[in-house]
Amino acid sequence: MTLGVTDKARARDFYEALGWRGVGGSGVEPVFFQAGDMVLALWDRAALAADSCVEDTGGWGGVTLAHNVGSRQEVDAVTEAARAAGATVAREPAETFWGGYDAIVIDPDGHPWEIAHNPGWRLSEDGAVHLTETPE
Amino acid sequence: MTLGVTDKARARDFYEALGWRGVGGSGVEPVFFQAGDMVLALWDRAALAADSCVEDTGGWGGVTLAHNVGSRQEVDAVTEAARAAGATVAREPAETFWGGYDAIVIDPDGHPWEIAHNPGWRLSEDGAVHLTETPE
Repeated sequence: MTLGVTDKARARDFYEALGWRGVGGSGVEPVFFQAGDMVLALWDRAALAADSCVEDTGGWGGVTLAHNVGSRQEVDAVTEAARAAGATVAREPAETFWGGYDAIVIDPDGHPWEIAHNPGWRLSEDGAVHLTETPE
Repeated sequence: MTLGVTDKARARDFYEALGWRGVGGSGVEPVFFQAGDMVLALWDRAALAADSCVEDTGGWGGVTLAHNVGSRQEVDAVTEAARAAGATVAREPAETFWGGYDAIVIDPDGHPWEIAHNPGWRLSEDGAVHLTETPE
């Protein structure tokens, strides 16, 4: 997954302040973060739009990321860490209508993250999220 | 990660045609897919915007997803499967400037996916993507 950003150094600093460690990123190259068994990249938003064959009309485009954690206390802690790192806390941690507990933080480029504890999902020690229902 | 969609049944059909298996999704609930150690959800885009505390200005918003596969042949095969399932192939499979091989397919809701083979990354049998460089 790649997030388009306008200031790669600022975006990298933000995610590194939350404990992630970037790889690469020299010159116009993306910065990469290992995130569990996937890779999250930060890249110039205009370059990403061109490379993705889409027009960038600005703003949000229908994708919201989530960081699932193991307890309400962790939701509170990650939300405070994001705020300290420069995120906008758009919704303070609170109980949700679906029986969980979450907050919404917006990164410096406007990408929203849900910081969530979902007691109905299983979370591995390494942060992996597992649905507990069986596919139909 | 949640993708906002305008027609949940159509979106679910698209991703299930690519071999994913949805969980939930009754009524206004999201459909969930286990994707490696994360969960991808499909949810009504307006509901997602409201829940994410963002304004939806339409169009693309600076996020591009990638499906990393183990060979050029797999890039070709996944691209054809996506086309058959109703995706727009915005860039046909080809060599990239960074030494890989990829295509861009756009899902029925306009979300772009890069279908990519990156020979510089390690791919586990279960599809997990591993950076081969060490964080700085």
